Amino acid sequence: MRRNERTPVLRLCAIALVAAVCGCAAAFGQSGGVKDPLPSWNESAAKRQIEEFVQRTTKPGGPDFIPEDERIATFDNDGTLWSEQPIYVQFAFAIARVKALAPQHPEWKTTQPFQGVLEGDMKAVAASGEHGLLEMLAATHAGMTTDEFEKTVKGWLSTALHPKYKRLYTECVYQPMLELLAYLRANGFKTYIVSGGGVEFMRPWTEQVYGIPPEQVVGSSGKLKFEMRGDTPVLLKLPEVDFVDDKAGKPVGIQKFIGRRPVAAFGNSDGDQQMLEWTAAGAGARLLLIVHHDDDVREVAYDRKSPVGTLDKAWDEAVQRHWIVVSMKDDWKTVFPAEKGKSAQ
Amino acid sequence: MRRNERTPVLRLCAIALVAAVCGCAAAFGQSGGVKDPLPSWNESAAKRQIEEFVQRTTKPGGPDFIPEDERIATFDNDGTLWSEQPIYVQFAFAIARVKALAPQHPEWKTTQPFQGVLEGDMKAVAASGEHGLLEMLAATHAGMTTDEFEKTVKGWLSTALHPKYKRLYTECVYQPMLELLAYLRANGFKTYIVSGGGVEFMRPWTEQVYGIPPEQVVGSSGKLKFEMRGDTPVLLKLPEVDFVDDKAGKPVGIQKFIGRRPVAAFGNSDGDQQMLEWTAAGAGARLLLIVHHDDDVREVAYDRKSPVGTLDKAWDEAVQRHWIVVSMKDDWKTVFPAEKGKSAQ
Repeated sequence: MRRNERTPVLRLCAIALVAAVCGCAAAFGQSGGVKDPLPSWNESAAKRQIEEFVQRTTKPGGPDFIPEDERIATFDNDGTLWSEQPIYVQFAFAIARVKALAPQHPEWKTTQPFQGVLEGDMKAVAASGEHGLLEMLAATHAGMTTDEFEKTVKGWLSTALHPKYKRLYTECVYQPMLELLAYLRANGFKTYIVSGGGVEFMRPWTEQVYGIPPEQVVGSSGKLKFEMRGDTPVLLKLPEVDFVDDKAGKPVGIQKFIGRRPVAAFGNSDGDQQMLEWTAAGAGARLLLIVHHDDDVREVAYDRKSPVGTLDKAWDEAVQRHWIVVSMKDDWKTVFPAEKGKSAQ
Repeated sequence: MRRNERTPVLRLCAIALVAAVCGCAAAFGQSGGVKDPLPSWNESAAKRQIEEFVQRTTKPGGPDFIPEDERIATFDNDGTLWSEQPIYVQFAFAIARVKALAPQHPEWKTTQPFQGVLEGDMKAVAASGEHGLLEMLAATHAGMTTDEFEKTVKGWLSTALHPKYKRLYTECVYQPMLELLAYLRANGFKTYIVSGGGVEFMRPWTEQVYGIPPEQVVGSSGKLKFEMRGDTPVLLKLPEVDFVDDKAGKPVGIQKFIGRRPVAAFGNSDGDQQMLEWTAAGAGARLLLIVHHDDDVREVAYDRKSPVGTLDKAWDEAVQRHWIVVSMKDDWKTVFPAEKGKSAQ
């Protein structure tokens, strides 16, 4: 056989074989058979329980098998996927917006809570109470179109730095949770955010940062109004609360926006308790997990007494009902993506 | 070379090649090159425009290419995906529920609109106005848990027959639209329902009937309340309107529940006009389509003067802005799945 004759056939075979082998390798990798899907998790009971849940619920014919379309996993955001200390990121955004908009509002110099924000007097801001905070939210989150607000959020997040970690807020996300999100998705779970935070504040960046597209983000929201500006339709953000996606609001938000009960739920505070209860109450295998912030070296240690991200009743219930309580200190090899590659701390 | 020596290698090559060729064929089929993805559509301009849109927006590197995660397609339900004549299916459900619940409500015998429903006096029902209809909705759609309501809807749909076609309502869906949904999904589009109908009324069956999962159904809704019944959390349906997903409410619903602008939108009435306007106003290629009910032989002919599914202003705008107006009579080879296989009528 001359070389010229067989070359095209063999090349075709080779290409096809490479494709086939790559396909197999990818599939094998996806099921977690080769590569550790959770490298930033220490080899503790928490990690074992997560892996064991995924294995038994995705094994066709197994007693705990969950069909792929029912594999809904809901994640709280603040304190579960990214840092919520010293203040919620969205609150930091509102403060920055008050400062940026102040030149157009000379009256803010003498009106609380704006005066407090401008003078750095957070006691005065807090003293303005819920009414004051709602006014601040209205002034910074409403009176513009959804497109304009999205641009503002993206702009701020692209430059604002976390006061403690001195890096972008979107880099103050938890590496072990990024791996958990990817691991669940690789096994056919649909990952959702169900957060007390504003839905319009999260959607502009969750796809890039968490791999969670806008349509899988559930959150609190203000009312919207459709109107024509000349020939162009816009959606105007109104200064009126529409839905609060926190505590008992979380199961409501899940039903409103997703319409089926999750099989896995992840939180870190009392605001997530009802979401975990609602998830737990369905028939079949369940994965329920609370992140406990007990690492004051790499992050912040806080729980029962913290005004931000209080973990008290939900902790008691987690212990009583054998939900997984993750110790950031003991269960996580690394906390933030920036630490990746460094040795365990 | 002896036969035994070369066989294993050639067999491997053959297997790999078959796999590769099958892969190509599948991909080719998906893009519509081999099998007609829309066999119930006549070879008209409407069909050509749909296929041409899908081809140019899914061609990598093409000027109109749309990344897969942005391929959001929203469909109205009543009159677009299934029949809405002589009355909305959900209204037929409410009437059936009033009759079923009447023994527990002796007072309904002398109270409108219930008396009218029980006596078959639809004039009296209509005369009770919006207030009466809301009362009827509250009595039949609230005061129970979401789980209980889902069971009731499924139960009714499994036996109730359409008064004209004498088959299940879920069989009064439009075969050409089922094909369009499947064709779009095969090309990476995510298909959503955005309907004025109740979201809790649609979600129990849309996955089975349309291939649209509950989390991709946007609709009108009543308020929900989370509460514990002993150890079991439930979501109670309250007799209070939460959101009306119709007319200007449709773009609002799209933003609230999906969080990104569709690239394709499908409707049949003035209630869909703002959804199509909102979709059209985004940058890039768009597919906008109105189903015109002009077939009084196979379905019902109605448009500008019809109290159900009025198509008036949206029709004018469709003509003016060159949206596709589908003639059921001329563009559809068959209307309902039951006709499939029969010759064109």
